Amino acid sequence: MNCSVAQTLEVVGDWWTMLVVRDCFLGITRFEAFSERLGIARNILTDRLQHLVEHGVLTRVAYQDRPARYDYRLTDKGRDLWLVLNAMRQWGDRWSAPDGPPVVIEHKACGHPATVTPTCSECGALLDARSLRLRPGPGAEHRPAPELRKDAR
Amino acid sequence: MNCSVAQTLEVVGDWWTMLVVRDCFLGITRFEAFSERLGIARNILTDRLQHLVEHGVLTRVAYQDRPARYDYRLTDKGRDLWLVLNAMRQWGDRWSAPDGPPVVIEHKACGHPATVTPTCSECGALLDARSLRLRPGPGAEHRPAPELRKDAR
Repeated sequence: MNCSVAQTLEVVGDWWTMLVVRDCFLGITRFEAFSERLGIARNILTDRLQHLVEHGVLTRVAYQDRPARYDYRLTDKGRDLWLVLNAMRQWGDRWSAPDGPPVVIEHKACGHPATVTPTCSECGALLDARSLRLRPGPGAEHRPAPELRKDAR
Repeated sequence: MNCSVAQTLEVVGDWWTMLVVRDCFLGITRFEAFSERLGIARNILTDRLQHLVEHGVLTRVAYQDRPARYDYRLTDKGRDLWLVLNAMRQWGDRWSAPDGPPVVIEHKACGHPATVTPTCSECGALLDARSLRLRPGPGAEHRPAPELRKDAR
């Protein structure tokens, strides 16, 4: 499917996969620690870690030889998922956290509790769901999908 | 699981669900149109639409009486998923679009092709994966998880 959202979902479009990535950002690196935190079946965890390594989101680094044991660490590609994860966190905070956010983020440089705020790369204005229009890009198929409307809603 | 990412995944942590939401943003509202675009089994599509209605992401609006037929429309809660969807699109563009982005976005107000850029709500600085520190928030359980490290990586 020629769609970058679909491409992303190929890699992380699965409940467990995204939770594994979340835990990587929290500093978890080892199979047993993921297993204990997530309460996930071991064969599923093995599968999801392997999937993330194959897609270049995680890399395996041996920390022990006999038997072989590995740390799973985020690659640059994996670390670049922070914005997807953060957008999910903020949406959950807004719509599914009646007692307030379980976690708040602090911007290290300015020291304040902060929200990640979407702005336009060109003019700096705040953006919302209605600010944007979609256009076929260079990677569009030759005949752009007729259902691609001019206005994103 | 007391985590807003997990709460979000409860609602949209599924390949088909997120593609249905994507299509809603593209203006698709009817069962037959989703079905045709996504090539999804009809029982799965029925299930996913129902799930999104139950979670308040979509609302059903009758457009025909006999037989009853509905448009599925994004609610405010659903429209607020635009940032999750956009973060997925931008990640896919960066890491899985060798021919360039299939779709580009234009900021309506300034008229330029734009990237949605994450900035700090407090000081306005650009943010990246290493800019933020996590803290327990008001919705944290009384004993915060010991594995919550001070630094998000």
